[in-house]
Amino acid sequence: MELSQRIRNITPGGSDGWEVFYRARAMVAAGEPVIELTIGEHDIGTDPAILDAMCAAARAGHTGYAAVPGTPELRDAVAERLTARTGVKTARENVLITTGGQAALFAAHIAVADPGEAALFIDPYYTTYPGTIRGAGARAVPVAAHAEDGFQPRPEEIAAAARRHGARSLLINTPNNPTGVVYSRQTLEGIAEVARAHDMWLISDEVYDTQVWEGAHISPRALPDMAARTLVVGSMSKSHAMTGSRIGWLVGPAEAIAHLANLSTHTTYGVPGYIQDAAVFALRQGEAFEEKIAAPFRRRRDLAARLVAGQSTVRMVPAAGAMYVMLDIRATGISGRDFAERLLDEERIAVMPGESFGAAAAGHLRVALTRPDEELADALARLLALAERLAG
Amino acid sequence: MELSQRIRNITPGGSDGWEVFYRARAMVAAGEPVIELTIGEHDIGTDPAILDAMCAAARAGHTGYAAVPGTPELRDAVAERLTARTGVKTARENVLITTGGQAALFAAHIAVADPGEAALFIDPYYTTYPGTIRGAGARAVPVAAHAEDGFQPRPEEIAAAARRHGARSLLINTPNNPTGVVYSRQTLEGIAEVARAHDMWLISDEVYDTQVWEGAHISPRALPDMAARTLVVGSMSKSHAMTGSRIGWLVGPAEAIAHLANLSTHTTYGVPGYIQDAAVFALRQGEAFEEKIAAPFRRRRDLAARLVAGQSTVRMVPAAGAMYVMLDIRATGISGRDFAERLLDEERIAVMPGESFGAAAAGHLRVALTRPDEELADALARLLALAERLAG
Ligand SMILES: Cc1ncc(COP(=O)(O)O)c(C=O)c1O
Ligand SMILES: Cc1ncc(COP(=O)(O)O)c(C=O)c1O
Repeated sequence: MELSQRIRNITPGGSDGWEVFYRARAMVAAGEPVIELTIGEHDIGTDPAILDAMCAAARAGHTGYAAVPGTPELRDAVAERLTARTGVKTARENVLITTGGQAALFAAHIAVADPGEAALFIDPYYTTYPGTIRGAGARAVPVAAHAEDGFQPRPEEIAAAARRHGARSLLINTPNNPTGVVYSRQTLEGIAEVARAHDMWLISDEVYDTQVWEGAHISPRALPDMAARTLVVGSMSKSHAMTGSRIGWLVGPAEAIAHLANLSTHTTYGVPGYIQDAAVFALRQGEAFEEKIAAPFRRRRDLAARLVAGQSTVRMVPAAGAMYVMLDIRATGISGRDFAERLLDEERIAVMPGESFGAAAAGHLRVALTRPDEELADALARLLALAERLAG
Repeated sequence: MELSQRIRNITPGGSDGWEVFYRARAMVAAGEPVIELTIGEHDIGTDPAILDAMCAAARAGHTGYAAVPGTPELRDAVAERLTARTGVKTARENVLITTGGQAALFAAHIAVADPGEAALFIDPYYTTYPGTIRGAGARAVPVAAHAEDGFQPRPEEIAAAARRHGARSLLINTPNNPTGVVYSRQTLEGIAEVARAHDMWLISDEVYDTQVWEGAHISPRALPDMAARTLVVGSMSKSHAMTGSRIGWLVGPAEAIAHLANLSTHTTYGVPGYIQDAAVFALRQGEAFEEKIAAPFRRRRDLAARLVAGQSTVRMVPAAGAMYVMLDIRATGISGRDFAERLLDEERIAVMPGESFGAAAAGHLRVALTRPDEELADALARLLALAERLAG
């Protein structure tokens, strides 16, 4: 039986650049020792105190259908968090609780674009972005950020794409996966200006907002006149090591959130109440807890920077946030994909080729800082040694 | 800022026939005693043993991203269940674990219909159906089932609609919400023939498959040549009193399920691993447990039938399954909506007007069998008395 064009087109081509990842997983499953620095997940599980709060809520009877937009307590807790962190007054009506940041990304695109309309996103990008836009029925249009700009996107190139495609929205992500780059205030102001000038929605993926190593996190929703056209994507996955619990949010204008809650009624029917209660508990642990979760990535970023500084073949993209560093291996003369394949074969180390995250990251590698320090240091040293051998 | 046409059109008109429900909720919130027989949720919470299994899995560390299509264990458990219950050999590759039956309904429509294509559904219908189809970007086309047929749909009318609209799919639900009707083998064979003749997908919502009071549940997937064009929607919500845990499934051809798993990567990124482990535990409790959960609804259906038999104004639609009975109050001369409003005002009893579930259920009331027996008996007696006064 024939399936819809749309679902067959979510990831066209099939080969999605994740072959190294799947090969590494297969090697691990076969018992081979591989150092995996591929996906964005902590080397710790969810804190037992958060799980206790969840189990207590479930045992107390919070097991029925929960309010679809989110429990009042959690919506309020997220609103308070955004108000405190961004300075934009945020109320319960501005918050929709979602099945992770991923469901927020999908819902946001259904909300802003009709089938066939263009939605922009920045390349390099988080892997699901183009498929999410296509799955929502819109046209996914990449706008490249350039290695020579430290992967800060150029507002004038976004404006040109907006004009050419009549785009309804722009999706950005800072702190950025895969590059580790944090957008500067100047970049964000330029982006905001383009969004206003071209009457676009800005979908701002801020799931790494607690992982900023230099300066402070700036949410574009806080820029002049931007609250009315910005949908912020947030998540407990990265900030609280709750990846598997599938809980996140969308924050935006109350009218948009009301429509998005109606969409949730028809897509997921909300998030388990006991998980929402656990999230309220987790958010109440405050910034000290969030810093504890983020600390290893800051430390490992510094570790990576020191190692890279000791040689001259590989350059590290200046990483100011998130749980990744991106390495420029163009001096080796081979592609990111070929390098990653060799690294896996010769050193049993798995990293992601930049090409998996878009054409703009070609000749780079993304290294997830998700293994203990010594293991990471060992892997990076061997990666750098391979690069030097190749550069010969 | 303008939102997409699509999201604004999910529930056009605004007034969605749920005013009685919201008014009853407001009265309860204000401290007034109301007997609520509105939504489809048990009067018990999730079994503590299932919650224990969930907490044990979480504490054992199953808190990271789980496999997006579902854990192998749960997919296998669902496959075994379908094989045993329907006789159709079902494998892991035929199963996708979803965020409740609702997410399965939404994903199924994305999979079968491109934007603007027609998707049929039977009226009266579960409330979210038309919005789910519209949210997925397709055109929602109702096909009426008639009170005089005991709400068994007529295959020839489905065929006519399929032809007129070039429909890609038909959504059916047996045991049925809101009518309590179970489709006969003859009805299902007629539907299957139409699906084959018009090359349509059949989306078969079987979330009430454990609540069948007469005969056995028949899945249309088991009919000749139907496995290749049927997507079965299932859920732990009703069968295991796990409504709040948001876990269900889609079962269908392996190729479709592979594409649907890819869609899940972009819409929800899967279901919490510890909830999947709890679901495996729950399914292993077997049919005795499922019968224990279903028993109160069977008992209350009988209770409702006895009470209705004692008078002649109100007729009960022959209910052979699910957790509802539908009462035909047309002899009172007023609409279901007006009756429900009066019942709430005069008796503090909340039931759903048939009109909330589509034009075909006008002049009816849906009574959820979700309160303890004595409370339900009291409410039904007062409802019948009001009907007699009105018919007076
Ligand atoms: C940039 C970005 N956005 C969103 C997500 C989705 O996270 P989740 O759905 O777990 O909240 C991720 C996960 O890796 C990510 O890197
Ligand atoms: C017919 C029908 N299908 C699907 C659902 C969705 O159930 P869930 O998403 O909780 O699995 C319901 C809930 O009331 C229903 O009545």
